[in-house]
Amino acid sequence: MTRFVLTLEFDGTNFFGLQRQASGPSIQQAVEEAVGRVTGETVTLHAAGRTDAGVHALAMRAHVDIRKDIAPFRLMEALNHHLRPDPIAVLACDVVSDDWHARFSCIGREYLYRIANRRAPLALDANRAWQVPQPLDAEAMHRAAQALVGLHDFTTFRSVHCQSASPVKTLDLLSAERVGDEVRIRAAARSFLHHQVRSMVGCLSLVGMGRWREEQLAEALAARDRSALGLNAPSAGLYFVRALYPGE
Amino acid sequence: MTRFVLTLEFDGTNFFGLQRQASGPSIQQAVEEAVGRVTGETVTLHAAGRTDAGVHALAMRAHVDIRKDIAPFRLMEALNHHLRPDPIAVLACDVVSDDWHARFSCIGREYLYRIANRRAPLALDANRAWQVPQPLDAEAMHRAAQALVGLHDFTTFRSVHCQSASPVKTLDLLSAERVGDEVRIRAAARSFLHHQVRSMVGCLSLVGMGRWREEQLAEALAARDRSALGLNAPSAGLYFVRALYPGE
Repeated sequence: MTRFVLTLEFDGTNFFGLQRQASGPSIQQAVEEAVGRVTGETVTLHAAGRTDAGVHALAMRAHVDIRKDIAPFRLMEALNHHLRPDPIAVLACDVVSDDWHARFSCIGREYLYRIANRRAPLALDANRAWQVPQPLDAEAMHRAAQALVGLHDFTTFRSVHCQSASPVKTLDLLSAERVGDEVRIRAAARSFLHHQVRSMVGCLSLVGMGRWREEQLAEALAARDRSALGLNAPSAGLYFVRALYPGE
Repeated sequence: MTRFVLTLEFDGTNFFGLQRQASGPSIQQAVEEAVGRVTGETVTLHAAGRTDAGVHALAMRAHVDIRKDIAPFRLMEALNHHLRPDPIAVLACDVVSDDWHARFSCIGREYLYRIANRRAPLALDANRAWQVPQPLDAEAMHRAAQALVGLHDFTTFRSVHCQSASPVKTLDLLSAERVGDEVRIRAAARSFLHHQVRSMVGCLSLVGMGRWREEQLAEALAARDRSALGLNAPSAGLYFVRALYPGE
């Protein structure tokens, strides 16, 4: 039995999320079935994060245990062949030790959120960004965001479906930056609560529009109450950027 | 009668090109029909360029004459409403004088070509870039490209279907640059021949792979013979970036 780690890029638009769902297609099901076609084995994919329906990944990491004797490069090529035409690509494949776990060994996760700050609909970035027509003050968003960085109880920014044992997390980075007509928000932490990034982005957008004072973000955090949430941003703008592991 | 200039963004993947075609949907048909729904008028769209099937635009310019009394902002909003769900967006709309012509007044056109230089299939950039698995030497491509800049007979790089009166054109810019795993090629000229950018990119890619010596690009140009063409790059990587007009 060999443990392989896969680096996955995917367009989450037409999936019900990364994790296997009874209700519809998932990234997990597509990759597990591709592994099955390559190896004849029934496997379980373990990923660094559990992205929602519509969320994309630039470099998700996931592992799978395989009995068949196969070189990582061949496995990658065969998976990419069998994954077509699904918008899922294996960017890298390596052998790891049996005690390496894509989810439990992961010590850092980074997300990008893209807001297309323009009036016109998105012809080329449909399903790839959140279109916000009101002018956004990215600098105000960045300043306000700093109140969330650090060790906090993020109950306000947590979905009611969140399965995390505790709402207390350390947020390492939350930045907002304007690049042309786009506002890019980056978030990094050891781990996130369910909907945390989208909830933080939603409230930041209210600050950017001037509908919230900058201090209201800190007040929403201090409320530790989901009803203090201003807005949950849509999934289409969210990208899982990378997962970090010890020694990398 | 008022002449309006539209700035159009579109995803050309599922269109038979910008120009109206008997064989299938075109950008021109979609925009003309949207104008018809807004104004009740039958109009003709005149665009700065005639992009092929699968080619995208970041900011194509096109004009249309309308009898109805309507403000440019309202026209833009109404067109964007009626264009849904087609991946065509009107980014800007202005009134111009009757002697301004999107095609004949245009004094400069700029294209971008995106090559995804990687082995894995494109999950997020499917239909938006050309995937080339062989490592490309972008610096060699850039050096070789300089032989095409200037006034030349571009017969080698011209489609047999080209309707231009002369194969002699002045190429103002042809650059290649690596950005991560992407090679970006930019081309600018007053006007281009049919398939010229894709033909130049195809040959540049052969230089990048090392299948052509750098000098072979100049030799292909000097041959003034379509059969000297090495490769015509696929349409999916090509973007019409902008059109320039006097006084802008």
